[in-house]
Amino acid sequence: MTNFASDNVTGVAPEIMEAIIRANNDHAASSYGADKWTDSLSEKASVVFEKDVTVFPVISGTAANVLPISSLTPPYGSIYCHREAHINTDECNASEFYTGGAKLVSLPGEHGKYTADTLSAAIFGKGVPRHAQPSLVSITQTTEAGTLYRPAEISEITEIARKNGMKVHMDGARFANAVAGLGVSPAELTWKAGVDVLSFGATKNGAMGAELVVFFNGTDTKKLEHRRVRGGHFLSKMRFVSAQLAAYLDNELWLRNATQANAMATKIATCLEENPAVTFIHPVEANILFLKMPKALVGALKSAGFEFYEMSNDDPTLVRLVLSFNSNEADVDKFAEIAKKYS
Amino acid sequence: MTNFASDNVTGVAPEIMEAIIRANNDHAASSYGADKWTDSLSEKASVVFEKDVTVFPVISGTAANVLPISSLTPPYGSIYCHREAHINTDECNASEFYTGGAKLVSLPGEHGKYTADTLSAAIFGKGVPRHAQPSLVSITQTTEAGTLYRPAEISEITEIARKNGMKVHMDGARFANAVAGLGVSPAELTWKAGVDVLSFGATKNGAMGAELVVFFNGTDTKKLEHRRVRGGHFLSKMRFVSAQLAAYLDNELWLRNATQANAMATKIATCLEENPAVTFIHPVEANILFLKMPKALVGALKSAGFEFYEMSNDDPTLVRLVLSFNSNEADVDKFAEIAKKYS
Amino acid sequence: MTNFASDNVTGVAPEIMEAIIRANNDHAASSYGADKWTDSLSEKASVVFEKDVTVFPVISGTAANVLPISSLTPPYGSIYCHREAHINTDECNASEFYTGGAKLVSLPGEHGKYTADTLSAAIFGKGVPRHAQPSLVSITQTTEAGTLYRPAEISEITEIARKNGMKVHMDGARFANAVAGLGVSPAELTWKAGVDVLSFGATKNGAMGAELVVFFNGTDTKKLEHRRVRGGHFLSKMRFVSAQLAAYLDNELWLRNATQANAMATKIATCLEENPAVTFIHPVEANILFLKMPKALVGALKSAGFEFYEMSNDDPTLVRLVLSFNSNEADVDKFAEIAKKYS
Amino acid sequence: MTNFASDNVTGVAPEIMEAIIRANNDHAASSYGADKWTDSLSEKASVVFEKDVTVFPVISGTAANVLPISSLTPPYGSIYCHREAHINTDECNASEFYTGGAKLVSLPGEHGKYTADTLSAAIFGKGVPRHAQPSLVSITQTTEAGTLYRPAEISEITEIARKNGMKVHMDGARFANAVAGLGVSPAELTWKAGVDVLSFGATKNGAMGAELVVFFNGTDTKKLEHRRVRGGHFLSKMRFVSAQLAAYLDNELWLRNATQANAMATKIATCLEENPAVTFIHPVEANILFLKMPKALVGALKSAGFEFYEMSNDDPTLVRLVLSFNSNEADVDKFAEIAKKYS
Repeated sequence: MTNFASDNVTGVAPEIMEAIIRANNDHAASSYGADKWTDSLSEKASVVFEKDVTVFPVISGTAANVLPISSLTPPYGSIYCHREAHINTDECNASEFYTGGAKLVSLPGEHGKYTADTLSAAIFGKGVPRHAQPSLVSITQTTEAGTLYRPAEISEITEIARKNGMKVHMDGARFANAVAGLGVSPAELTWKAGVDVLSFGATKNGAMGAELVVFFNGTDTKKLEHRRVRGGHFLSKMRFVSAQLAAYLDNELWLRNATQANAMATKIATCLEENPAVTFIHPVEANILFLKMPKALVGALKSAGFEFYEMSNDDPTLVRLVLSFNSNEADVDKFAEIAKKYS
Repeated sequence: MTNFASDNVTGVAPEIMEAIIRANNDHAASSYGADKWTDSLSEKASVVFEKDVTVFPVISGTAANVLPISSLTPPYGSIYCHREAHINTDECNASEFYTGGAKLVSLPGEHGKYTADTLSAAIFGKGVPRHAQPSLVSITQTTEAGTLYRPAEISEITEIARKNGMKVHMDGARFANAVAGLGVSPAELTWKAGVDVLSFGATKNGAMGAELVVFFNGTDTKKLEHRRVRGGHFLSKMRFVSAQLAAYLDNELWLRNATQANAMATKIATCLEENPAVTFIHPVEANILFLKMPKALVGALKSAGFEFYEMSNDDPTLVRLVLSFNSNEADVDKFAEIAKKYS
Repeated sequence: MTNFASDNVTGVAPEIMEAIIRANNDHAASSYGADKWTDSLSEKASVVFEKDVTVFPVISGTAANVLPISSLTPPYGSIYCHREAHINTDECNASEFYTGGAKLVSLPGEHGKYTADTLSAAIFGKGVPRHAQPSLVSITQTTEAGTLYRPAEISEITEIARKNGMKVHMDGARFANAVAGLGVSPAELTWKAGVDVLSFGATKNGAMGAELVVFFNGTDTKKLEHRRVRGGHFLSKMRFVSAQLAAYLDNELWLRNATQANAMATKIATCLEENPAVTFIHPVEANILFLKMPKALVGALKSAGFEFYEMSNDDPTLVRLVLSFNSNEADVDKFAEIAKKYS
Repeated sequence: MTNFASDNVTGVAPEIMEAIIRANNDHAASSYGADKWTDSLSEKASVVFEKDVTVFPVISGTAANVLPISSLTPPYGSIYCHREAHINTDECNASEFYTGGAKLVSLPGEHGKYTADTLSAAIFGKGVPRHAQPSLVSITQTTEAGTLYRPAEISEITEIARKNGMKVHMDGARFANAVAGLGVSPAELTWKAGVDVLSFGATKNGAMGAELVVFFNGTDTKKLEHRRVRGGHFLSKMRFVSAQLAAYLDNELWLRNATQANAMATKIATCLEENPAVTFIHPVEANILFLKMPKALVGALKSAGFEFYEMSNDDPTLVRLVLSFNSNEADVDKFAEIAKKYS
């Protein structure tokens, strides 16, 4: 079986598994994050982002989103995000829950991206008691459509946010793939473009279960510490999460893994782009492809052991392919070979 | 000054003020709703709705919405309503707050109304843990645009709700105007069309501050009693709210007041409809008009003491006129006369 | 029937009813508190409290408690109050609800009062992420036992609060009775003794349904405005609540009413204090008496039309008597006469 | 350094680390718990508990508490627990948060245990709208004092719960130590004694980060699935948590680890019990000791590399020792030897 279904299905990258094992063999530290692995994360992340940052290791993407979101949004606030954003559709009201009842305002936009103009037109209610107060803008990078916001696009959005007194959150569950895809620095995609806090994903890119919340702007994060406890996300053996993240940040593992995933996605895209039977739904800019392909081709790929997500039952069928840090050329070649027969 | 700005600005209808005074002169009853006025409401409402109903008197429209909404929606639920619905835009996340973090899904639709098809296409996530669970459909009748859903339109919507296991709430802050406007019975607009609970407004139609939550389908309302207390809506001298509502239900005062307001709105509409300088934005079906009129006409009306809401600064200007139970022919005639000069 | 059961059962004081009627006959103002009655409250209250204050009229005691409490307590905070405090036992978790999950820490203490020492010993967790953060101290004045905190006692408590970075709320549902009972100024019982915000009750003392939230220390109350809306406590016809409160503050009506209620309570106490069959459970300092009296006496009083609350079924029986602004000498004399027969 | 400070500081048991590594080398399964390790847990737990159970693997003790607690307690409910319970003091209002504002009622009791009588006397408010509704009883087993409830004590408590319509939760962060300490079956300590749901801890007893929520009574747990998502506890690579728990349940690893920890605690207790300089604060029944010992002895032990928690600064000093699955005889002997010098 070859997994092109989800980067959540992939296992743990060898560097990260070794880090976990080493942490277990090491001298027992203290609990609840008072350990050297957790301590090291601020510095390692500050190097990656070329800025002093405050970081919080957590275990899930939802936790990595809602802890900063609820620290930056009052219960009477509103959060602007793309209609398809994970926080809007796939976290079962986690943001509404953690904020104590804030409102998510969903924005339309092609290929999983909204524009600064769309945001600007939607902002509503500032200063009026009966309206939810515009508090936070959330950008998903890599988007749910596998596409990328350019630094200039991010800056335009964050400028609108700033003008309206709103903070900016980036859901970066696949942030590494965005850096790899755009070839710009992590700083350019975040604080240099006006982002206040990033949920920097590792789980989809080789960790066992680890995400890093990264605050850029000296936000007072004392409150987040309490919210982390009451959310059930203050882990007694936090060092095993931190050890994963330390290994992820070391030697640009995060970037190497993402680069490999993206390269494999690009390779598939290249093979398919002249295939008249295949339609690209979104531009392929990171490690995800949305395609329409003949039902017969879907069947042939499945028979050959390829696993991926069918998003419709029609012919042609809408499918999603997600490439991972451990996807390899041989599998991609095999995929391409089968596809060629159905052109 | 003549108030065409809001039915919230009007005072208390004489029948209702007398009822308050009588209640105060009457023998002191017990507190917290254990009194004859509160006791009488079920029966009076059951007559109006031709069905045994369970009722709760409350003091505000928001309370009348969120108490039943939060009784019918779990924290992980979603509530489908029109994009312009009061619960979505004007209650500062009250529904998100009272439900403990449910999501409002806003639906588009012309003239303040959405269709059963729009609802059906939007329902999403049923049974999937990561998605909010479709729980409630809310219909605003009279809509924010001053328009009305016909019984058949309501039935189509509630049928979709029922098929998806959802309950149906009607925000009837101006329900009386809808009954008056359509000439159908309260039953036909509610439970006969599949509505589970109605927020039956009185404040905009002559009460001092009183709304009646009406449950039609034998819902277990024990929970609501606790939610009412913790919301701060369990009033010690509830009898003064109940006395208002009793007078409102007696002798069809609710319907007479609404009929007068609607008639005055219709009269203005009739006067203006052949005026080429005036554009109707929405059909006039109850007691509200949305119009575009020349800035000069706006100025003339204001100078003559008419108060109404200007919703834009352009020329022509978008204005909202709301007629009330105590609007009168003389004022409407004067309004029409001025308008005629700007045709 | 003579109501000694609750000051919630009493009707509306004539001065207040007249104010409501006058407000209705007056020129229609704007809605949602943009009216002259609401406007006047800050100044009137500033006179009463000898200090510039910020005020919010609300409709219920619970609303008057939870709106300021939730403005001063984060979800991860803790609120220290007496074990018998209304916010702890009689509001069905309203404070937990409005704060988004803060914890109430209940303190023991005789006669409904806790001491500064008890508070000091209980404060816990400051600065530690896994503990709720001490945020608010709440004092009930008049207490649930009908007793009073002296200014010096309040100052001792608020000093402990201040040292621990906590704000101080006073639940003054019967604040007027406390002022009347102690013969000190409202200022001395509140901000001069370190209180930050007062829920100043009127409903139990002659209003139809009105309480005034009074902030003393220039707190930023913008947030409260949003919380008021989402709680359903932003009333469209707020002027009818404000008119009650304006009349209540005018000419010291609040104090006169409370003085009468207290005088009647004192008179009963005096009549009973030498009656060997009657035991006083708490000192009588305001308008409430807790007594143990023979079951036969209870029966005789009930037969004579006196209504009061029996808190046990034993003989002697624990009863609560609450005197009100409209309790009169004749009734009290009649009560005393009956009691004499059972001495 | 020898860790007697906390069982949270210990590393991962070798059997569990091997299970994690094996899971990573195994064929990639699907994400979000649709994998063979997660699938296996119901059956393994059903064997341990001699009953068909429904289970949910989670990552932290707080999550293991609040997910079932919030599934069994409405926002207007109350939860009765010991004053020192972890849910009351160490989870920063997690239960208040997840329930949407329920109240924790804390019960006194010696040695970390409350009695059925204490519970019975405290239950309050049933059926009255203004009171929080008694909904859940929580028992901590092993208690925060390191002591144990006998099956008969649990049965007495759960009988009171049942009579009052309340469900029963057991916080079993150290449940394995309780089973080992009492020598009774897991069934006898839980469902046979009336417990509805158990938070079965593994993290303190050899896991990296894993706890198992175990429902005994066919409760509808659909709601819990949504709450798990919105809490951020629905892990994409859940199989690595489940693999830990599978190894923990296999071959009674949970019991062997706990038995070793308890044996080491008993050994220390035996060594110290005739030492006149040492006072036992609580009976030693599982793996935790609370002792008063001379400051000099504390110093000597610290110098010798023993790490433990000093809970006071007095002489004698109150200390807590926690023994773990990997505590060994040699360390305990060394500890005893030093203590002997200070007798």
